[in-house]
Amino acid sequence: MTPEARALHAQSVVVDALHTCNWDRSIFEELRTGGYTAVNASNVLWENFRDGIDEVTNWKRRFAENADLIRPVKTVADIHAAKTEGRTGIIMGWQNTSCIEDRLDYLEIFKDLGVGIMQLTYNTQNLSGAGYLEEHDSGLTGFGREVVDEMTRVGVLCDLSHVGDKTSADTIAYSKNPVCMTHVLPRSLRDVKRNKPDELFVECARRGGIIGTSFFSPGLKAGNESTVHDVLDAMEHVITLVGEDHVAVGTDYSQGHARPGPWLLWANKDKGTARTLTEFGSVKINKPAGVDKVYKLPNLTAAMLARGWSPALVTKILGQNWLRLLHQVWGH
Amino acid sequence: MTPEARALHAQSVVVDALHTCNWDRSIFEELRTGGYTAVNASNVLWENFRDGIDEVTNWKRRFAENADLIRPVKTVADIHAAKTEGRTGIIMGWQNTSCIEDRLDYLEIFKDLGVGIMQLTYNTQNLSGAGYLEEHDSGLTGFGREVVDEMTRVGVLCDLSHVGDKTSADTIAYSKNPVCMTHVLPRSLRDVKRNKPDELFVECARRGGIIGTSFFSPGLKAGNESTVHDVLDAMEHVITLVGEDHVAVGTDYSQGHARPGPWLLWANKDKGTARTLTEFGSVKINKPAGVDKVYKLPNLTAAMLARGWSPALVTKILGQNWLRLLHQVWGH
Repeated sequence: MTPEARALHAQSVVVDALHTCNWDRSIFEELRTGGYTAVNASNVLWENFRDGIDEVTNWKRRFAENADLIRPVKTVADIHAAKTEGRTGIIMGWQNTSCIEDRLDYLEIFKDLGVGIMQLTYNTQNLSGAGYLEEHDSGLTGFGREVVDEMTRVGVLCDLSHVGDKTSADTIAYSKNPVCMTHVLPRSLRDVKRNKPDELFVECARRGGIIGTSFFSPGLKAGNESTVHDVLDAMEHVITLVGEDHVAVGTDYSQGHARPGPWLLWANKDKGTARTLTEFGSVKINKPAGVDKVYKLPNLTAAMLARGWSPALVTKILGQNWLRLLHQVWGH
Repeated sequence: MTPEARALHAQSVVVDALHTCNWDRSIFEELRTGGYTAVNASNVLWENFRDGIDEVTNWKRRFAENADLIRPVKTVADIHAAKTEGRTGIIMGWQNTSCIEDRLDYLEIFKDLGVGIMQLTYNTQNLSGAGYLEEHDSGLTGFGREVVDEMTRVGVLCDLSHVGDKTSADTIAYSKNPVCMTHVLPRSLRDVKRNKPDELFVECARRGGIIGTSFFSPGLKAGNESTVHDVLDAMEHVITLVGEDHVAVGTDYSQGHARPGPWLLWANKDKGTARTLTEFGSVKINKPAGVDKVYKLPNLTAAMLARGWSPALVTKILGQNWLRLLHQVWGH
């Protein structure tokens, strides 16, 4: 890595919009090594209300035990504070709105507790809409419209990464606030269902939203053989579509979970306990060579500079774009 | 009323597949006066798991306090016992699968506790499918297929009365057991969304299911001006479509609730607490003249005989058809 790359990465506010690591001190140490200013820690997939509360209490314990490495993030100011303090800010996020169950008013309860980003649905149908693995996509339901309005009102960023195409399109069109996809890849580079079509990226960006680039190899052009260059190709494709202000990073690192193992097998069952949905819980999934571990994120910065991208563009992708959107949705 | 009508009603096994009365001793007394052998008491609309358990405990208390008038029904033998004892059998039923929340295995828990009939969805989207008021009908979801399979496995009768047309069609086609509509009316006689099209009646019956005729005036031909003759017209229409073995009674009596009042206003909000869905919570709804109170059900029998229907047909409609289906679904 060039000294320029190392310096730019170290100076930048680096925001990664999706991790589901098996959180412990070793991961928090890697976050520091990797120069992360803030991470959306989004392990909630199928949880209900009480499980969601437990996720908050788990983070309170982790914050207390690892206060030298991490801090909670509720505001954009907290992200800047994390940068100043040399700690990694943790945004509590969810990959499902299942924790609010059937109660709109529980959304504000969780926002008050620090949950700043929520994916509308995980992989299948919930009360608000359909995930990408549902055979028929319900679109955004009546209740879903109320959920999206409540996210706008209380300041929760709405994420559509795993959401079905029709529900995604409906939500982008309906939401008064911009929405995002924290971790996604272009279907036009690799035709898998989990990836999204160009038109959704265009509409999401046109409404002010952001497309976070995932490092999930099965969605990259070369599949499990992919390298950091395939990640850059995906970014470049989306930048060409929507411009450099609407592309960012959401790596989807899930380090520390056994694969196959109980957490991934649970993740790949509908609601965590019903039928198995995909093979991803049991097969080997590589992260791209060069950025296959949490601590290696500076290699992304080096690769972007090596490709001739300007430091201004690189810092937008690394964090400035997320900062702008979070500021807009969370407010002051 | 003729002595013949009075005698036939008194001799018959009378099964009413849907009440949502505000249960107290005065209603149980009316059930006896009205000659009901068994009633599906189906007040659950939006409840969650704990609420569903509470509904069971409420019934345990009512059974204990009114043992001279009512008894629990878990089997068809219990219905015959109720007839012999001169009590009314109470089938615990639900108008939503919301009580199982996201857990397939909770379905058997509730079956063990005595819940024998479950409507797949109430008026809007749930995890299994769409209610009739959802703008877009998701159809039967992947989870919904598992729920329907579990109903077949443990012996719960699946009800589609408030379910959306597409989800209903999917469920009829998918379910290994016959399914039913406990309380419904033909859209071809009155074009309102809550009513169902002829083709769903035909498919439901073709697969062995039953169409229970509702007394909900807004769905009858003459709306709030309807009489018992409009109820008979609805039955006649469906009998012509599907034959006399597939038509029965599900009055939808909801006596004892203030209208407008808290229970109906709650019922008419999505999930009980979100947006208001229809005007039915606040407007006056008559039950048809002649059968406008629970205790007046014998007038239905009289009207059927007066129309020239045979005693054999009348007893099928009054209860024998439900008995056959419950026996098939619940087993021995």
